[in-house]
Amino acid sequence: MTSESAGTIIALAGGVGGAKLADGLARLFGERLTVVVNTGDDFTHLGLHVSPDLDTVMYTLAGIANPKAGWGIVGETWEFMAQIERLGGPAWFRLGDRDLATHVLRTERLAEGETLSAVTAGLCRSLGVAAALLPMSDDLVRTMIRSDGGELPFQDYFVRLACAVPVRGIRFEGAKTARINPALAALGERPDLGAIIICPSNPYLSVDPILAVPGMREWLRAQGRPIVAVSPIVGGAAIKGPAAKIMAELGAAVSAVGIARHYRGLIDGLVIDEADAGLANEIVAEGIKVRVSRSVMSSTEDRVALARVCLAFAGEIADGRCR
Amino acid sequence: MTSESAGTIIALAGGVGGAKLADGLARLFGERLTVVVNTGDDFTHLGLHVSPDLDTVMYTLAGIANPKAGWGIVGETWEFMAQIERLGGPAWFRLGDRDLATHVLRTERLAEGETLSAVTAGLCRSLGVAAALLPMSDDLVRTMIRSDGGELPFQDYFVRLACAVPVRGIRFEGAKTARINPALAALGERPDLGAIIICPSNPYLSVDPILAVPGMREWLRAQGRPIVAVSPIVGGAAIKGPAAKIMAELGAAVSAVGIARHYRGLIDGLVIDEADAGLANEIVAEGIKVRVSRSVMSSTEDRVALARVCLAFAGEIADGRCR
Repeated sequence: MTSESAGTIIALAGGVGGAKLADGLARLFGERLTVVVNTGDDFTHLGLHVSPDLDTVMYTLAGIANPKAGWGIVGETWEFMAQIERLGGPAWFRLGDRDLATHVLRTERLAEGETLSAVTAGLCRSLGVAAALLPMSDDLVRTMIRSDGGELPFQDYFVRLACAVPVRGIRFEGAKTARINPALAALGERPDLGAIIICPSNPYLSVDPILAVPGMREWLRAQGRPIVAVSPIVGGAAIKGPAAKIMAELGAAVSAVGIARHYRGLIDGLVIDEADAGLANEIVAEGIKVRVSRSVMSSTEDRVALARVCLAFAGEIADGRCR
Repeated sequence: MTSESAGTIIALAGGVGGAKLADGLARLFGERLTVVVNTGDDFTHLGLHVSPDLDTVMYTLAGIANPKAGWGIVGETWEFMAQIERLGGPAWFRLGDRDLATHVLRTERLAEGETLSAVTAGLCRSLGVAAALLPMSDDLVRTMIRSDGGELPFQDYFVRLACAVPVRGIRFEGAKTARINPALAALGERPDLGAIIICPSNPYLSVDPILAVPGMREWLRAQGRPIVAVSPIVGGAAIKGPAAKIMAELGAAVSAVGIARHYRGLIDGLVIDEADAGLANEIVAEGIKVRVSRSVMSSTEDRVALARVCLAFAGEIADGRCR
């Protein structure tokens, strides 16, 4: 399958790694790409609605993401934060001067009654992002981290404590009553959907909240199209973020095999890195097809190349040419 | 009367000119100065509670006011605004990156249930402002400008339209039910109050909203201390802002005499500029005592000097040494 034959494509994404592959897909598919984005990380800070994963994907696809930090906007300045500190405000979550414009506009528009989907679509239009970025739901879902001694809101765990406490469990507050993004349901009526790609985002923190929205798993499977994931674990470690640490803390195998088991019943195939080629048979034994590929994305070319690998793999699965 | 003999002092202030004299008084009185500040200009922009006059006075007394613009913070940067424009947001009201910290913290704290007084006190503490800055009321009062064809919210008139439309009337929405700042009422019990100074702010746009709060005029008079105003009109023109234009549009004499008539019944004395010395008799004929002084404040020394003039004048009025 190529970007020409695939028609449209759906990707599921959270943070940095996911945004990179989404960018590779966006370069191939343009507005024929829909990215379903995790909003479990969303929180209110300084009275502003912050959507870290939506912003990471949006900034990445707009070509303005900060390549070093993994969040925020390139060339960012910090005058606002410096003044917040002078005024005795909280400094643990850093909002850049440019990035702030996103949060202020989003907060204002949400307060005026716009949905998060509509706000996101407007921001994407202004930034020239052609792909459709869909929050998994327009309803509030909050990822909560259970650690020793109690439960933490996600950003407290992730940013304030820098993931330094052990994770004993993860809960998606509000997920049970959240409604799947209606624009996604509408998309499902397209017969030209080529494949569904689960980007190499943290399965526990970025993809599971998406899958926790009632009906999401069923909707994805009901498309009858190949679902392909890319392992965010390479050589027993995460490319970025706490995925490996969390998997160990929750008793999962910290490897592409652990990822395969995590997604069992949902995905048809898993793309694993060349470093993990030796794990292929173990993954196939789980009933999941495997494609071995270079998967670490250091350049734009890498992003597009990995997108092509995912497409070709999905095409072979669809055609029954894959064992 | 000197700053030693005056005990405490109350000033009424709005924008730039008022803030300058308040600064002169603050340099003499420190925490013995209370500034009652206009909040009729307050409005919600981009979902943020902006208090232009409170901020102008606060920044001026903190020594961080932008000396050129007459609003905002010195050395300000504009990354946020540039991004707001990129995102299709409104650009007619400019919020600097540092200034924004004030609005974001204020909005958050108001949303949490703090009063505007408490928020202002907290911000002043952080900025090292020793004087007490009191919003005239913690309740919402909105200055509305009646022009040809309808009524405009104040900032639409003042910033968006740059005062280009004629003023036919001014209304202070919410003033009738607004309660006088309780901290001000508490202050009134101090027997050491030396004088009340009405700073050279726009009488119509900056001082009238303060006086429109029910009980404010009566409270000021009830102190039994000299009330001295400084004319913001010098040589038939305003030092800054639309005061002269508005006075003409509303049919008032555009001169220190017009100012005297405007404040008749409230003030005991009016400080007028040397340029207007020839108007002294006309003002005395209105039943208001006059002090002629250099009144244009170009330097910090000018601010302190004018503050001393006001004090000495109030002292002479109190002692009955003034005709």
